[in-house]
Amino acid sequence: MSEFRKDPLTGLGVIIAPERAQRPSQFGHAGASAPCPFCPGNEALTTAETWADRPHDSPANGPGWSVRVVSNKYPAVTTSGAAANGATEAIMTGEGIHEVIVESAAHGTHPAALDERQCDKIFHAYRQRLRHWRAHRRWRYGLIFKNHGERAGASFEHSHAQLVVLPFVPAAVENELSQARAYHERAAGCYYCAMIASELDLRARVVASDGEFVAICPAAPRFAFETWILPRAHAPAFEDSNDARLAALGKILRRVLGALDRLHGNPAFNYSIQSQPWDDSQIGYYHWQLRLLPQLAGAGGFEWSSGIHINPVPPEAAARQLRDALV
Amino acid sequence: MSEFRKDPLTGLGVIIAPERAQRPSQFGHAGASAPCPFCPGNEALTTAETWADRPHDSPANGPGWSVRVVSNKYPAVTTSGAAANGATEAIMTGEGIHEVIVESAAHGTHPAALDERQCDKIFHAYRQRLRHWRAHRRWRYGLIFKNHGERAGASFEHSHAQLVVLPFVPAAVENELSQARAYHERAAGCYYCAMIASELDLRARVVASDGEFVAICPAAPRFAFETWILPRAHAPAFEDSNDARLAALGKILRRVLGALDRLHGNPAFNYSIQSQPWDDSQIGYYHWQLRLLPQLAGAGGFEWSSGIHINPVPPEAAARQLRDALV
Repeated sequence: MSEFRKDPLTGLGVIIAPERAQRPSQFGHAGASAPCPFCPGNEALTTAETWADRPHDSPANGPGWSVRVVSNKYPAVTTSGAAANGATEAIMTGEGIHEVIVESAAHGTHPAALDERQCDKIFHAYRQRLRHWRAHRRWRYGLIFKNHGERAGASFEHSHAQLVVLPFVPAAVENELSQARAYHERAAGCYYCAMIASELDLRARVVASDGEFVAICPAAPRFAFETWILPRAHAPAFEDSNDARLAALGKILRRVLGALDRLHGNPAFNYSIQSQPWDDSQIGYYHWQLRLLPQLAGAGGFEWSSGIHINPVPPEAAARQLRDALV
Repeated sequence: MSEFRKDPLTGLGVIIAPERAQRPSQFGHAGASAPCPFCPGNEALTTAETWADRPHDSPANGPGWSVRVVSNKYPAVTTSGAAANGATEAIMTGEGIHEVIVESAAHGTHPAALDERQCDKIFHAYRQRLRHWRAHRRWRYGLIFKNHGERAGASFEHSHAQLVVLPFVPAAVENELSQARAYHERAAGCYYCAMIASELDLRARVVASDGEFVAICPAAPRFAFETWILPRAHAPAFEDSNDARLAALGKILRRVLGALDRLHGNPAFNYSIQSQPWDDSQIGYYHWQLRLLPQLAGAGGFEWSSGIHINPVPPEAAARQLRDALV
């Protein structure tokens, strides 16, 4: 059983998750010869599927799917069946949901090389799972994230994302929300909408833009080539996106990932979808975004101790290089 | 020239350091066959030494040293000669000092296997450099840190630490200080002194202790086997330690690193020395500590997006395993 704990002094929250100590590739003892649990035919190696994109006549937990969602076998958080014991991030039982979204039946597909149709299926799966858990009304926050490559924390090569659903809003997210709320009160508008307008005006940090989305390197990026993809129109929740917007997201993400791949040869990366907490109403001050965090160099003692990241590539230079590498 | 930048919304500070893009092993293109710039005889491959522990008749920038300090050739921060332009962490020129402390003339020495005498020399060098830069009164914070192994962010195998000196106190450190200050006002005592007493009473998270130091796994550790070493007596600044205390620090650190090595076979790790900011007077509420952060598994998209670390090893279990592996 997991626990949420918080350092009383630093305010840093952690999840103590003993179940994850059994993760196969963790600590570098990967069985490279072991069968891939995410490949079709190996469904018995995962937990039972919670959702799949598969033909109606195709039985669950066998081949035939194009996207498959399972509970994480080595979860960071779990449901005990007991009621969630609070909505604050203190020391408490680690209640939550941890799912794996297997993004393709093909083992070796690079995310930048996914076809349009498969990319749509993946984003539809993200949306379905977020909507599913939001409807339970027991949870306050859902985070979709993807680890690609060992340096980005992936334990499996086969393309997959993860969803963690929590009974509280993480402190770092809450901090950003409260700043956005303060801006909204001060300026009577959305901070992110204003940032998009200002970046489009400035152009130096814009990687790509189209009718639906803008991709920018943020002004103070922690990681080299860090890129945020935001809908141009104000939209607090990713999971409220319609099909057309998801298709447009796939298009711009594949363009940016393709440019990154051409510049750095399949680098490790993380991305996450930062969306509004699951409160009852749409909020005016938050604006969802996909944050792409390339992992070209690891963090070190300076970053872990000071909280300040050293980034060797100015975002203006990163945006220019990415723009030049777009197809 | 570096820049300090701060995201206005997340409050996360970064250092944009274009000079670091040229770091030899960065982005994995290491020239494994290139000569080690930290080995005796290769002194010309580094910048001129700023300090060294060497015989009086041995000329600078040649062999004969046992610990050698040089300016980082690929610095995160630099001095332009201009006056430091402020003491707040906003967008400003990246003024500061970035030194490398080469910890041994021998290329392949593991930190746990250093002899007592060499270990003393290393901590004396840390103390000397902190005192040196503190005396300049232009700077506000000095952080000694060590990256051991590629997963911990090291670009060189040869044992070394680094010192970054800044004109401001990093926000994460300032946050911890302000919590410690609030505790001190509330309880009329030092938070860390109280924590040490409580952990020694509880025993479950104590790894080792002696007359001078206690080594504990903190209650909410971000990393598996994370261990903090604190002086038992209240002491705000590492650099005010006397020789006997530095010798005792070396002794307990070697014991803990030895246990970690026996459990995990030379794992990557970071450590940092968190000491008080360089204000004029000794402060009652801060208590220096060495934080040892083993890097057995990397951070992933969840950690980078939520700020919450998932740690598979409860600190009580980590402390028990480390205790059992002590010699």
